[in-house]
Amino acid sequence: MSAVIDGNGANALAPRIVGVSLAERSYEIVIGPGILDEAGRRIAEVLPGARMAVIADETVAGLHLDRLALSLTAAGIGFETMILPAGETTKSYDNLITVVERIIGGRFERGDAVLALGGGVIGDLAGFASAIVKRGMAFVQMPTSLLAQVDSSVGGKTGINSPQGKNLVGAFHQPSLVLADTALLDTLSPREFAAGYAEVVKYGLIDRPEFFAWLEDNREAIFAGGEARIAAIATACEAKAAVVAEDETEQGARALLNLGHTFGHALERTARYDASRLVHGEGVAIGICLAHRFSETLGLAPKGDAARVEAHFAAAGLPTRIGQIPGETPKLGELMDAIGQDKKVTRGTLTFILTRGIGRAFVERKVDPDKVAEFLTRELNP
Amino acid sequence: MSAVIDGNGANALAPRIVGVSLAERSYEIVIGPGILDEAGRRIAEVLPGARMAVIADETVAGLHLDRLALSLTAAGIGFETMILPAGETTKSYDNLITVVERIIGGRFERGDAVLALGGGVIGDLAGFASAIVKRGMAFVQMPTSLLAQVDSSVGGKTGINSPQGKNLVGAFHQPSLVLADTALLDTLSPREFAAGYAEVVKYGLIDRPEFFAWLEDNREAIFAGGEARIAAIATACEAKAAVVAEDETEQGARALLNLGHTFGHALERTARYDASRLVHGEGVAIGICLAHRFSETLGLAPKGDAARVEAHFAAAGLPTRIGQIPGETPKLGELMDAIGQDKKVTRGTLTFILTRGIGRAFVERKVDPDKVAEFLTRELNP
Repeated sequence: MSAVIDGNGANALAPRIVGVSLAERSYEIVIGPGILDEAGRRIAEVLPGARMAVIADETVAGLHLDRLALSLTAAGIGFETMILPAGETTKSYDNLITVVERIIGGRFERGDAVLALGGGVIGDLAGFASAIVKRGMAFVQMPTSLLAQVDSSVGGKTGINSPQGKNLVGAFHQPSLVLADTALLDTLSPREFAAGYAEVVKYGLIDRPEFFAWLEDNREAIFAGGEARIAAIATACEAKAAVVAEDETEQGARALLNLGHTFGHALERTARYDASRLVHGEGVAIGICLAHRFSETLGLAPKGDAARVEAHFAAAGLPTRIGQIPGETPKLGELMDAIGQDKKVTRGTLTFILTRGIGRAFVERKVDPDKVAEFLTRELNP
Repeated sequence: MSAVIDGNGANALAPRIVGVSLAERSYEIVIGPGILDEAGRRIAEVLPGARMAVIADETVAGLHLDRLALSLTAAGIGFETMILPAGETTKSYDNLITVVERIIGGRFERGDAVLALGGGVIGDLAGFASAIVKRGMAFVQMPTSLLAQVDSSVGGKTGINSPQGKNLVGAFHQPSLVLADTALLDTLSPREFAAGYAEVVKYGLIDRPEFFAWLEDNREAIFAGGEARIAAIATACEAKAAVVAEDETEQGARALLNLGHTFGHALERTARYDASRLVHGEGVAIGICLAHRFSETLGLAPKGDAARVEAHFAAAGLPTRIGQIPGETPKLGELMDAIGQDKKVTRGTLTFILTRGIGRAFVERKVDPDKVAEFLTRELNP
């Protein structure tokens, strides 16, 4: 029950509201402690009369579903719940079909909503289901992990994994509302919190060097909770919202959000998506460090910036090198193959997000695969 | 080879081009005989450098794939082909996953396209696959049935069937180009051609009474081919494009396109989607007749209009009454249940497209289910 007490006790902190501007698909992200208990009221304001197909994984349901149910009931919102197993393998065709058929069987209509209570896995799967049932239902996100609060809560990316790669099947489908209860993050393990933190840092490294410097000064306060945590999450959401508003379906500028992700996805793939070895945020942390070191190698970024990024991730308890991934080190060929399959490839040339230094990331669409292989060879044999 | 000769022989007729205006998702429909042989050139203009994942069913592939392949090759377009079984049951989760995995395995990228060569089943399935692989690839439609040329070629509806009902899973995903070769329709059976014709007539009945009158005068010429056929298809596409441009995701005005479809879908469902008993266009023909008779019963439409519609469908070889469906007549309860599951239901009230007479259809969102049951009871026991 500590999450409940923390949540209520922290209610004195006012929520921050971040708007995501996408014309008629615009929506708000409400960020603060105790939002879970206000869920019913806030949803009823945005989607009056809608029923909810609530989707959660076993872990999150055990921790938070009772409070959500109370809040929905108090607001007079009808709902059904569907509980799925926890973990990345849940993002499968089988679970998608199960959820879609349950929603159809529950006679949910286009004006009703799918409500995802959980981390990125549940958000991606439930969001994709909401995108394709009757060609699109409303969608409400209640991200319960730091990663989900700063990443999947903005931008409308939904999807599942293919046996051939992660997130290769999905849709862009914007939520109607995102409720990010920052007090729920107290139930995360330190490793999970750190993994989400890698994505927070990413926004500083893309184009907000002053935010990165602020994170260097406030990391411990953010991990402890309270005002600094809310501010960090809100800034990350604002940063992502600004990019997404410019480029909703990832044709151009949005590619910057993939800083660290081409390497990161390849590492996740070669680690067989085994969360005991590597979770997404850890892959991103290593990937961001690789992107900075690769940029230094290419003479693009000043010497020392990569080390500063590494130091910050290391202080947060995150891995920064491929060799830190437990288990067998991937082969170069495997890694290059995984990079080639990444969906950010255009017409055969490799696209990477490189950097001219902290807060100066840019999209490079014509990276020579040989240069990447040469760089990775050194990284794999330090 | 008669289709080829007809196609070339008819090339003297200039194609008609209908624009579908949807801001950055606008596209053109090219309608005319012999377009198949120009496919490569026309695709290369719209999607320069894109590779094609060509999807067709066995029947259509046998008739037309060689010519398409020649045309693509001549234009320097790389492609892979995937052949699926013919028939409505192809629109399944299993086939969707097979197609999606084949596209991913073929290393098609976001800028590449899925090319659907076929009728509505292939168009819906391939279009949905293109909507969800890597969260959206380009899509080119080459509809080979009359139904597909006038219906699915405009509006971007894609999807598959759920075990719980038809088209319950899908996405709105606009094509980049539609190539409708009207000479290919010569390979259709008279029954298939007539089924597509029901959708052509629908546009007259929605809001173009003068088009309906023109169809009454030109029906035989349209069935024979040539100029009248091109004109009928182009007018139907224009009519649909005008509605879709106003309401891309079916929030309001687009509902008019469902004239006859709530009854029609229910009849298809109770006939177990058995094409030997009832194909979609036949369901629509009966559904349109039911909508007109129901409107007369409610005192909304002048007496005699329903009979005029029935006479036109009957002359085209289409069924107009539930009793004409071969096999067991559906039970009232079954039909009402199928109507209730239709996706055009909003918050429990039944939505029907009713009419004040020929060319005067309107959306009625509060139809009393008891009135529907009463009307259907009489229709089932004439």
